[in-house]
Amino acid sequence: MLALTELDTPQPVIDRQIMRANIAAMQALCNQHHIANTPHFKTHKSVELAKLQLAAGATALCCQTLSEAEVIAHEIGCDVIICHQLLGAAKIERLRQVASMVNLTMICDNAVVAKYLSECFAALSTPVDILVECDTGMARSGVVAPQTAASLAKYISTLPGLNFAGLLLYPPDDQIERAQAFLDQARQLIEAEGLSIARISNGGTPGLPNIGILGETEYRAGTNIFHDRMQMGKGVATDADCALTIYTTLVSSAEPGRGILDAGSKTLTSDLTLFDDFGYLPDYPNARIYKLAEEHGFLDFSQCEHKPQIGEIIRVIPNHVCPVVNLQDEILSVEDGTWAAPVRVDARGRRR
Amino acid sequence: MLALTELDTPQPVIDRQIMRANIAAMQALCNQHHIANTPHFKTHKSVELAKLQLAAGATALCCQTLSEAEVIAHEIGCDVIICHQLLGAAKIERLRQVASMVNLTMICDNAVVAKYLSECFAALSTPVDILVECDTGMARSGVVAPQTAASLAKYISTLPGLNFAGLLLYPPDDQIERAQAFLDQARQLIEAEGLSIARISNGGTPGLPNIGILGETEYRAGTNIFHDRMQMGKGVATDADCALTIYTTLVSSAEPGRGILDAGSKTLTSDLTLFDDFGYLPDYPNARIYKLAEEHGFLDFSQCEHKPQIGEIIRVIPNHVCPVVNLQDEILSVEDGTWAAPVRVDARGRRR
Repeated sequence: MLALTELDTPQPVIDRQIMRANIAAMQALCNQHHIANTPHFKTHKSVELAKLQLAAGATALCCQTLSEAEVIAHEIGCDVIICHQLLGAAKIERLRQVASMVNLTMICDNAVVAKYLSECFAALSTPVDILVECDTGMARSGVVAPQTAASLAKYISTLPGLNFAGLLLYPPDDQIERAQAFLDQARQLIEAEGLSIARISNGGTPGLPNIGILGETEYRAGTNIFHDRMQMGKGVATDADCALTIYTTLVSSAEPGRGILDAGSKTLTSDLTLFDDFGYLPDYPNARIYKLAEEHGFLDFSQCEHKPQIGEIIRVIPNHVCPVVNLQDEILSVEDGTWAAPVRVDARGRRR
Repeated sequence: MLALTELDTPQPVIDRQIMRANIAAMQALCNQHHIANTPHFKTHKSVELAKLQLAAGATALCCQTLSEAEVIAHEIGCDVIICHQLLGAAKIERLRQVASMVNLTMICDNAVVAKYLSECFAALSTPVDILVECDTGMARSGVVAPQTAASLAKYISTLPGLNFAGLLLYPPDDQIERAQAFLDQARQLIEAEGLSIARISNGGTPGLPNIGILGETEYRAGTNIFHDRMQMGKGVATDADCALTIYTTLVSSAEPGRGILDAGSKTLTSDLTLFDDFGYLPDYPNARIYKLAEEHGFLDFSQCEHKPQIGEIIRVIPNHVCPVVNLQDEILSVEDGTWAAPVRVDARGRRR
């Protein structure tokens, strides 16, 4: 049995049953649509959890940084997609090393990165798959015009060490028609260059209700292994789907209706995502964490009928689970109401 | 010489000359006012830097968490003040251990915490100094009325293992009269109980222009070892005082005037503090990091006359340096324009 009163707070805890159900649900969805499941390592950064995803049927792991890819290459050895534009002299030898260890895919949205990747991989015996990143509404990275996608694809196809393999996109979940139009036009232009699009990588947990519509061959989702308040807000999860919860203690209540939790921005992070407060309290849904200091969560419970007491341990579902996990070396876990092995966050802090 | 083009980004770098000047300036200010300098370990979390502060004249270290105090007790051994309300069965034995190793001061704003601390320390041969935390406008933790400060002080004085030693406050820098009025009244009430106020701990880098006004015996400042954009905004630092800078590469620029830096929320954190964007770019003061994803900094440089180029390494002064440091195991450092030893962040992630 869990001795909640003994829990040292602030403490994130993973419910393995919920997490396993989330892993299985994502794999079932991909299977149903005949799409390769390429989950995002950046959410959990855990070799153990990545292996659970691969055992369930995932075909590759996505990640955001080279040092995450290094953990995957050294400790797992599966196919890897680094979903970020990379540059820098310090990364050349490391990228080459990873590409020599695993089947690596890189992305690219400009000629500087293309040339850089060619310089990295030209001496390898097998060229590295490159996906052109396309921006269909996020205004982040990614070419903004199908014409640019085509000219970049052509440029990539001329560079040694690179194989133009297709497109990668991360469409806003409410702009699916725009993504469809972009892809149609890009395909036409790219095929007119005599190139073929072998792979289309789509991504994002909030976009999962649209899975398959764009004809993608693979899907990158990260957050849905744990879910979080952002996914609840997007309507793709309920609090019962949230596998990671932060336990925190009410340590002060200097005035009626307000108090201080021992979880602040160094635990919950300051990520607001869709919200104007810092987490959802399933046992006190009318309470709000309206402000954070580094180790203080400012709690307004004036609207709660039943009020929390000083010393009480309270659960919080974080707004955005990914940066929360990145603050942990390991995370406690429960299964069937008893403690299970902690989850090691192997790539915690691996940002370069 | 620094080979900036070789720097692996995103990468925070500490300028030791600036940092040493900041340490010296704080000590000089405390000396001038005959106030004990008790710098906050939570900012740097580094044994090496704490020792520099102690060598300069600091008399104790403040910290926010028990696990930070454990690092200090084991690796430094100086006096420690834990400036947070602590509770929880899991911490009792650990607190007792720290109190047996160093001269420990705790704070308290309610009877539950007072009783808990007494339970922790009753069996020790020397009672532990307790400061009553007073709220003079921050609406965080701390008693909100001088009467409550007095009654809590009296209660503490009756509990075994505890020694009521004085008051701790963290006044908003623009409400100094309110803090003065609170202290005057609290002193009168507490002395009427037959107790004396041996210590008054004041704190906060933004409040430093007011140092000494409240008659404090000791001062807690954290951020001013590095300074950051928040302190620039508060008018207590300029960019030349900022000792920690994040180097990041512009890796994408899909449209004129905007681009993507390789530093996102997992490097800069989402802390806005006083601002509506995520850092100050000293070399591009008209550029704005208007949004963050985990590994993407969305940069608007449309207002810059000279535009950054893809591949360029750009410096960012973070909004709030403390949570940035907490994401690092160690931080590169420079001195006199050459690389110096990295700074180890010994208590990185120590939140409990």
